[in-house]
Order: sequence, then structure tokens, then C-alpha cells
Amino acid sequence: MLLSLEILTEQMRRLPGVGNKTALKYALSILEMDEMQAQAFVSAVESARRNIRRCDRCFNLSEGICCSVCEDASRSDAQICVVEDARAVMAMERVSGYKGRYHVLEGVISPMDGVGPDDLRICELLERVNAQLAAGECEVIVATNSTVEGETTAMYLTKLLKPLGAKVTRLAYGIPVGADLEYADEVTLGRAIEGRREI
Amino acid sequence: MLLSLEILTEQMRRLPGVGNKTALKYALSILEMDEMQAQAFVSAVESARRNIRRCDRCFNLSEGICCSVCEDASRSDAQICVVEDARAVMAMERVSGYKGRYHVLEGVISPMDGVGPDDLRICELLERVNAQLAAGECEVIVATNSTVEGETTAMYLTKLLKPLGAKVTRLAYGIPVGADLEYADEVTLGRAIEGRREI
Repeated sequence: MLLSLEILTEQMRRLPGVGNKTALKYALSILEMDEMQAQAFVSAVESARRNIRRCDRCFNLSEGICCSVCEDASRSDAQICVVEDARAVMAMERVSGYKGRYHVLEGVISPMDGVGPDDLRICELLERVNAQLAAGECEVIVATNSTVEGETTAMYLTKLLKPLGAKVTRLAYGIPVGADLEYADEVTLGRAIEGRREI
Repeated sequence: MLLSLEILTEQMRRLPGVGNKTALKYALSILEMDEMQAQAFVSAVESARRNIRRCDRCFNLSEGICCSVCEDASRSDAQICVVEDARAVMAMERVSGYKGRYHVLEGVISPMDGVGPDDLRICELLERVNAQLAAGECEVIVATNSTVEGETTAMYLTKLLKPLGAKVTRLAYGIPVGADLEYADEVTLGRAIEGRREI
């Protein structure tokens, strides 16, 4: 294969979930773009990387010093929703009526990948929670994913946050709305029974 | 969503087969790259586009004026394998013992997409075949895909090439090696019966 094409294919493989065949398909489609399209493609990468940074306060993606959520004065400081990454913030913002703040950990505790608590934004979270508790009440909603790593991180955070006096909550796990009981996996069904509510 | 991120996501959607969610995933992964990775990514796109052109003779991808197949003096000029795109050349080169030349059409006849014969490298193919026939024999192996458009193109080419005196052949269609008869679709099985050979 041509050297430049090989290098481009190798770079396309860096995108998440992309294997050899897809990477080659992407590389060839980039070669087939007309000049204007290709320039738009490259400059989108460059300007996104130049313009987007992490919010100083919650580490959400932001084009300024603070992100739009942190800058919104109408939102409550008394609730901090802790998520793994900016994608989770987007998902929450897309659907929920949540009106508190966020805190992006930038990962989860994962000894297998060499990620410990010090690699995450946990210190900054404790500072924020302490500052908020000095001003009044504080609820921390732990919304890490329900993977082993996400649960480990949630437990770790709970152990740190409860002694400070914060209220720590976790998102509800259960049967997805619209799904059939029959097709729910055992763990989810177990959680749904555990978390049952009086009606 | 942030404007720069929206633009980047829109550009990622340009890659073939990429929908909204995957495009966002790619865009976020590009933001998460470190500076060196991102530079390598962008410069791979730029240098591939700068260095790779179409071969003057067969329109295969090439880093020089002629591609490596056309420059290989040990290959036979008497066979020209006609394919839709450079990916097909790569597939043929990967597996086959084919020692002739190629001709990349850069597409197939597709009235639905507004692609007619004049949009393809058919004129250039006729010139090559005529030149080769003046020097000796010429077999044109039509290796367009077995889609409606590929078959239409193959028929169109056959009608043009036969009167010139060229031998026109088509790749064999049949049961893939290792596959079970039971699972072959009817069209493939029909073609396999049609193309049966004495043993």
C-alpha cells in the first residue's frame, strides 16, 4: 500500500472502535473529498482543538473559561451531578429536567488501565463540595456508568463525601421504560426489585 | 452543543457509514487526543491528500505519475482488469496471482445518482484497449461489483469493447469457498449453476 495512505489509515484507526477495514474506508473517502471538503474537515479538527477547553470549575467541555452550565445563574449550586465524561453531561442535558451543576471526573477508577483516584478530578470535587457545604446544603448525585469501574468509583466517592456531611445519591437502576420484563438481564432485574418504590 | 464541537461532528459525519452518535464519539475522541497525536492526525490527512494522486494510465492511486502496477515491467499488458475503485485493486492485489494491468473506472454507471458513462474513465479505457490491440492481443476482465450498477456497467463495457476485437471476460460468480449451499442466496446459487464447470 502507498506510504501516505498507510499512515492515514493508521491515524483513522485511532478513532474509537475503528478496525483496519473501516480505517481504510475512511482514508479512501478522505482522498475522494474535493479540496474544499478536505479543508473544512482539517480546519474543523484544528479549530475544535483550539477553541474547546475544559471548564475551570466542573471540567465539562467549554469554549470559554467556564462552561454554559456553570455560567447559568438560574441553576442550583446545591446539586452536583458527578459524571465520567462530557458525553454524559450532553446525555443528561438532552433529556432531563435537571437544574443543578455537573462535575466531570474525566474517567473512572480502573486499576487494570492504571487509572487511580489521583488521575481523576476528585480533589477538585471535594473542594467544590466543601465550599458548597460551607454555604448551605449539598447533594452529590453520582452518575457514573453501571460498569465495574463506574460502581467502584461511585463507592469510592461515597466513602469520601459522606463524612463531609454531603447527601450522596446514585441514579436509579431498573427496567428501561418500554422494555419487556422477560428480556431484562438478571442484574438489572435484581436492581429493579431492590430499588422498588411504593405507589 | 458547543459550536466548534458541532462543526467537528458534522465533518465526522462525512466519513462513510457514520451516523450522529458515532460522529460525536469520533469528535470527542479527537478532543481527547494529546497535542502530538492530534498533529499526527491532521498532518496524515494533509500529506495523504498532497502526495497521493491518480495514476496517469490506469487511475489507480499513486504517489508518482504512474502507479506501482503500471511501473512493473514484469506484468503483462495483454490483460486489463477493469474495477470500480482503488479499493478493488487493493483487494485483487492482496489475494490473487493476477499479473496483468488494471483500469480504475472511478465509479459505476448509476442514473439514480446522476452518474453516466461520460463521468467514468471509459474513454481512457477504450484508448488503452485500442493501443494494446494494435500491438497484439487484449483481454479485458470486467471486475465491477455484482450490484445492479456494476452489472449495468459491465454490460455497457462489453458492448463497447467486443466490436473493437478485444476478448471480454467477467469474474466468476458462485458459492464462496467454505460456504454451505443451504445458506447461499438464490441469485448466487443460480449463477453457480449457470457457471458450472466439467471436472
